Amino acid sequence: MLAESHWRTQTRTFPCPPHSGEKMDNTGYCSESFNSLQSGTSDEDMVEIAGATLDFSSTDDVPPLDRDYSSGGSYGVGDGPNGVPKLMDLLDEPVPGVGTYEDFNTIDWVREKSKDRDRHREIATKSKESAWALLKSISDAFSGWLLMLLVGLMSGALAGGIDISAHWMTDLKEGVCLNGFWFNHEHCCWNSNETTFQERDKCPNWKSWAELIVGTNDGPFAYIMNYLMYVCWALLFSFLAVSLVRAFAPYACGSGIPEIKTILSGFIIRGYLGKWTLMIKTITLVLAVSSGLSLGKEGPLVHVACCCGNILCHLFTKYRKNEAKRREVLSAAAAVGVSVAFGAPIGGVLFSLEEVSYYFPLKTLWRSFFAALVAAFTLRSINPFGNSRLVLFYVEFHSPWHLLELIPFVLLGIFGGIWGAFFIRANIAWCRRRKTTRLGHYPVLEVLVVTAVTALLAFPNSYTRMSTSELISELFNDCGLLDSSQLCNYANVSVTKSSSDSLPDRPAGQDVYTAMWQLSLALVFKMLITVVTFGMKVPSGLFIPSMAVGAIAGRLLGVGMEQLAYYHHDWVIFRGWCSPGADCITPGLYAMVGATACLGGVTRMTVSLVVIMFELTGGLEYIVPLMAATMTSKWVADALGREGIYEAHIRLNGYPFLEPKEEFSHKTLAMDVMRPRRSDPPLSVITQDGMSVEEVESLIAETSYSGFPVVVSHESQRLVGFVQRRDLVISIENARQRQEGVVSASRIFFTEYTPPQPPNSPPPLKLRGIMDLSPFTVTDHTAMDIVVDIFRKLGLRQCLVTHNGRLLGIITKKDILKHMAQMANRDPDSILFN
Amino acid sequence: MLAESHWRTQTRTFPCPPHSGEKMDNTGYCSESFNSLQSGTSDEDMVEIAGATLDFSSTDDVPPLDRDYSSGGSYGVGDGPNGVPKLMDLLDEPVPGVGTYEDFNTIDWVREKSKDRDRHREIATKSKESAWALLKSISDAFSGWLLMLLVGLMSGALAGGIDISAHWMTDLKEGVCLNGFWFNHEHCCWNSNETTFQERDKCPNWKSWAELIVGTNDGPFAYIMNYLMYVCWALLFSFLAVSLVRAFAPYACGSGIPEIKTILSGFIIRGYLGKWTLMIKTITLVLAVSSGLSLGKEGPLVHVACCCGNILCHLFTKYRKNEAKRREVLSAAAAVGVSVAFGAPIGGVLFSLEEVSYYFPLKTLWRSFFAALVAAFTLRSINPFGNSRLVLFYVEFHSPWHLLELIPFVLLGIFGGIWGAFFIRANIAWCRRRKTTRLGHYPVLEVLVVTAVTALLAFPNSYTRMSTSELISELFNDCGLLDSSQLCNYANVSVTKSSSDSLPDRPAGQDVYTAMWQLSLALVFKMLITVVTFGMKVPSGLFIPSMAVGAIAGRLLGVGMEQLAYYHHDWVIFRGWCSPGADCITPGLYAMVGATACLGGVTRMTVSLVVIMFELTGGLEYIVPLMAATMTSKWVADALGREGIYEAHIRLNGYPFLEPKEEFSHKTLAMDVMRPRRSDPPLSVITQDGMSVEEVESLIAETSYSGFPVVVSHESQRLVGFVQRRDLVISIENARQRQEGVVSASRIFFTEYTPPQPPNSPPPLKLRGIMDLSPFTVTDHTAMDIVVDIFRKLGLRQCLVTHNGRLLGIITKKDILKHMAQMANRDPDSILFN
Repeated sequence: MLAESHWRTQTRTFPCPPHSGEKMDNTGYCSESFNSLQSGTSDEDMVEIAGATLDFSSTDDVPPLDRDYSSGGSYGVGDGPNGVPKLMDLLDEPVPGVGTYEDFNTIDWVREKSKDRDRHREIATKSKESAWALLKSISDAFSGWLLMLLVGLMSGALAGGIDISAHWMTDLKEGVCLNGFWFNHEHCCWNSNETTFQERDKCPNWKSWAELIVGTNDGPFAYIMNYLMYVCWALLFSFLAVSLVRAFAPYACGSGIPEIKTILSGFIIRGYLGKWTLMIKTITLVLAVSSGLSLGKEGPLVHVACCCGNILCHLFTKYRKNEAKRREVLSAAAAVGVSVAFGAPIGGVLFSLEEVSYYFPLKTLWRSFFAALVAAFTLRSINPFGNSRLVLFYVEFHSPWHLLELIPFVLLGIFGGIWGAFFIRANIAWCRRRKTTRLGHYPVLEVLVVTAVTALLAFPNSYTRMSTSELISELFNDCGLLDSSQLCNYANVSVTKSSSDSLPDRPAGQDVYTAMWQLSLALVFKMLITVVTFGMKVPSGLFIPSMAVGAIAGRLLGVGMEQLAYYHHDWVIFRGWCSPGADCITPGLYAMVGATACLGGVTRMTVSLVVIMFELTGGLEYIVPLMAATMTSKWVADALGREGIYEAHIRLNGYPFLEPKEEFSHKTLAMDVMRPRRSDPPLSVITQDGMSVEEVESLIAETSYSGFPVVVSHESQRLVGFVQRRDLVISIENARQRQEGVVSASRIFFTEYTPPQPPNSPPPLKLRGIMDLSPFTVTDHTAMDIVVDIFRKLGLRQCLVTHNGRLLGIITKKDILKHMAQMANRDPDSILFN
Repeated sequence: MLAESHWRTQTRTFPCPPHSGEKMDNTGYCSESFNSLQSGTSDEDMVEIAGATLDFSSTDDVPPLDRDYSSGGSYGVGDGPNGVPKLMDLLDEPVPGVGTYEDFNTIDWVREKSKDRDRHREIATKSKESAWALLKSISDAFSGWLLMLLVGLMSGALAGGIDISAHWMTDLKEGVCLNGFWFNHEHCCWNSNETTFQERDKCPNWKSWAELIVGTNDGPFAYIMNYLMYVCWALLFSFLAVSLVRAFAPYACGSGIPEIKTILSGFIIRGYLGKWTLMIKTITLVLAVSSGLSLGKEGPLVHVACCCGNILCHLFTKYRKNEAKRREVLSAAAAVGVSVAFGAPIGGVLFSLEEVSYYFPLKTLWRSFFAALVAAFTLRSINPFGNSRLVLFYVEFHSPWHLLELIPFVLLGIFGGIWGAFFIRANIAWCRRRKTTRLGHYPVLEVLVVTAVTALLAFPNSYTRMSTSELISELFNDCGLLDSSQLCNYANVSVTKSSSDSLPDRPAGQDVYTAMWQLSLALVFKMLITVVTFGMKVPSGLFIPSMAVGAIAGRLLGVGMEQLAYYHHDWVIFRGWCSPGADCITPGLYAMVGATACLGGVTRMTVSLVVIMFELTGGLEYIVPLMAATMTSKWVADALGREGIYEAHIRLNGYPFLEPKEEFSHKTLAMDVMRPRRSDPPLSVITQDGMSVEEVESLIAETSYSGFPVVVSHESQRLVGFVQRRDLVISIENARQRQEGVVSASRIFFTEYTPPQPPNSPPPLKLRGIMDLSPFTVTDHTAMDIVVDIFRKLGLRQCLVTHNGRLLGIITKKDILKHMAQMANRDPDSILFN
């Protein structure tokens, strides 16, 4: 029953295509697209389902044509290695529109890739004919690289712009620069003469709002003034963000990664990666981040990069016309997104490989890497952080870690796993609530309320008031000699060895204890507010909030360990490496490990996560702690709930996504999953030479399946091919308009040769050209795990089921997803969230 | 015709299994295994081939059983989602041996993976019954990780041992330590009081052979003495190496990567990864490296790690019994091999993914990474290089590169590409010569002659006398203030800014010019000698020699550029960044880029190569030059010859390897490739209920195919399933021995129910259990590019071809490889090496 309702609710979740002119209700989702999904052209309900007994005992009546063909002694018109029968030549020119897809449909990977190989072959053949064709062939070969270069440049530039704007607008909440309102706090004070960092922050040109309005920055009134301005700006930014999303591009909300995963697996959502989405997402991302909401820009940057990739695809025919090739570009674009988000090109490529992509050939690996590097260097040349660093959080640790420290690292891993599982559960429950109750009808109000709560609670605590990425940066930081931060306020003991940059362990000062309290409060606040923030109708990423939670927890544990080691350096466990005056514990490393663990618990990333973090530190030494935490976190989180946040959202939204990572472990057979089932009407098929235009048209009108198998005859059920509904409709329409004399009574032939028609009969309609002559078949005894494997690896839309050579039924991707959901619900061991 | 002869020679190339007791000829290859490969059980010649006209016009005669089955109104015994028909229960216990593979056969990935899922399901079901079973299920789940840990530890330890021994034995060629003969030169002089590096080299405890024998190290006589000892040791080492390989483990020769690629793609070569191979390869690798031959230990380390993985698999039933699971471990082991070879765990994983592995699920990615890290840290704790560094060549560059330097980097890329293509061509031609002429009959003599030539030519030149990895290390090195190497002998100009570690550009001293000459000679020598060295009957890797060639070329160009910039810093191109006294060109970086380019040209690695090199330097800054060189090198090399060295050797040896990277681009159909062809005898099939034991036995005796399709009847050719020859033979033998009354006249049934037998007839033999009920089928009109895709992605052994529901023929992996070779030969554009 759960699965039933799950599938019933799915269709409600596709947001409107932005410019389809459809009526939109106030949730930003529209009922039209809901209907269109349930309508006949929806992807997977392809063939009429029947459970009626198929009569296998009847004899085949092979029609004359087929008999002629086979008794001719060969099974091809001109077989032999090169004598490819030119079936297509017998037909008219291909009708425009045949072979394309409708919105919310799944592509057929095999067909798309085959199409691309045809195209490639044609260019290769032509290239021998003339210099111009050769040039075209070379430019075609390099167009992929050129496209990658453009995607890298565009995404890098956009990311730089977003970084700079977000930085400026975040500072705008606190004050303004007198030199020019377009300077952020840091740039404003760049040329200040103050020497220490703390004093530089208070440079005269930068005025807080209280200073501007009240004239002073001290006293309760000024504080309230600043508080008020902070909340107002936050509300303004978030209101702008949600309004822009609602008005222009509903697809721009969220992180976009679940949808991109679905699109990369072969689903079509028109407009999701369009220019409107790109524009609005870029603008609203800046607004959302600046508003101080507990969200990050990393996930949405992946969406932005994919939009760039998709839009730039239109420049090249090769990618514009082929859905499979375009997905290769999108996979690379996802890598670019992470590359610019963290400054980690290798990590980005592995993220795309591990987390996002579905079909990732090696060629794409190499190109993704290229694009990711281009993007990273473009971003660096823009230099948004002002420090010539590629990476978002640059850290340099000086002291090595001790083997015993693996215990707290594993503890952080456990924390990360529990937090990840808890977060996913709570967030999915909240999102479900939003979808099913009246809450979902007021997206703008929701955003404003959450922003108000966030701003009101965040301002008093300096660790929540600063932007989350600044917070993480500070937590990761190893306290140096010159650090003036509150977190580095250690009591000064006589520094014995001043040669190295690293400091020995010291007792914590009062400020550190204050910071601990503030951080604990910030931890609770972040943990709770992120649950309601992720999934609102603004662009929102999860990476930064998750990392912040982990980094706070890690820093707390790290400082605790450090003080423990300082005060109890004679304990057995510390004796080996924590003599007084030695620098034995690095709290910044703990923060990093904690951030990794929490991010791992939420997203279930593994290799890519460790590599991204490795690229931040650049030292292989610290991989082991990161790996220990990631592994523990993944195991703990997997034990508490199988799905990562993206898979959970995919399932919540009911996208037709066949998870490539999860093994299908039930012992069912193809015959248990295929339709028709027993009580269903018989399978709707078309015979290869027995039906008239009228009969086929009525079949199309009566059923809503998007494809029909073609058989030799109803009695024999020997499969000939498969024809798509869309292609059939377009071809018949076209024939009626253009081909002389095609009327309702015309017979439709899918055979190779049309027999001579009786005199006075209308001319026949030959449609062999639109039929897929190589439909995939499995036998009814094939184990479902094998079928699932085939669907995943080949990217099929549907597969026909035969028994001893007779067509028996059909399995579509949706049937498989349904079946998997059913089996998962039946299995008492598996923990599901809904 | 070329393809024909190519396929005919293939079977000669499999070396003997080490302990098969087969007669071995003096090439180390044996004629027995040659025969066994041509014999009937050889993998792909499965089904008798026929081109006789198949009569499609006949009517089906559905046998009574099948009719009963289908007219029962359902097509399963107890269908419905969970009512899996228990077909197996009707049969006896599975016969031991059924479902295993013979040597030199290809595995069926689908079947193996399905078997593993069955096993997993069984454990999961049992785990609910008792605590013990639950414990077993948990230990089963973690056995993969434990195995990875063990592989990492063992490979790391072995690599450490190999490094230390090779270092010691290399030094042994020059002299001996008086403190103890087991110290190498560096360790011997560790506690020496001399301060400079140069003087420390001449510490009193380390005696060259001349000093020991003649008493002095000066004068021509001492030089000749040292020369002689150097050559003698080299000859001794190489003689031991080749003799051990010949006597105990012929599989231990070569780099092993082509064979591992083939094994990972599903081929079985028993003993190739066994304990004898491991032992002998480890020992002879040290000997071969120490003998000073132009070979490296990196490729063989991958083989060693894979042997460790394979041997450790025997500890766990899960991996011992399942060929597909074991290949996952081997993929991870390949990553471990590169990880310990270069100290680059991430690069190792990517190498396995990009270059070696065939089936690399994400789970394996994560585990490989774990194993690679464990191995890297095990190696580091052994600390064979004595510098606490993970990496083989640690480099640290101080000055950034300028955009204009991309021009020389691209030039190095072009050089690398040309050298790679030339090397592959020359090496393959030489290896073919070795196989086809009498040269191949004297492997020991060949090795001794090559060693003698190498040693005689190498000794006089200090850059070839030192071990190749030392050479590369020195070439990569950026000259610091304290460097006393010949290459860093620059004229001293007044150093204006002494604060930084980097030195400004200076004119080259006389020593540098001498070094340039010596390096040029070394370059020519290495280029030529490597061609004849790779492929000899000793363990030999290609990475280090290729890198040496590139590093020398790069350093030469780098020094040239540096001097050009120094003397002509007023040229337009240098004016921007090469003012006098500035440090603008790093010759070490050029060496590194050159090494990358040459290695890329030879192996055609891309991402993994760049990442390995990145891990050596640790700076993202230098990725761009590396990438530019790698890309150029790959493009140039691909234009000159499509295959990398490993693919070329796979093809030379005729391994049944279906290259996953290359697209099949010809427009042929399944019907053009399948057998039977027109002139062939009809397809050998078994009917599901019509044949006696005798008939089947004679079919087995007459044909040599390793599998037979089972059809409803000869007339209808409706496919029921597929049965393996091996399983059939074992089952019939077993039935004759154990099952009462099964005689030659007994009828064999593949149907679900056996009809009542007439009285006095012998008892029937039911064999449905050994039949594959879900054979893969494609239609005769399926394009071959799709068929190739299916074979690659699903890892099939064979695929049946149908036309309108009738069985028409069969396509095996070998048919596809044959067809691809034919098409490639026909295509005038493609450049082939044979």
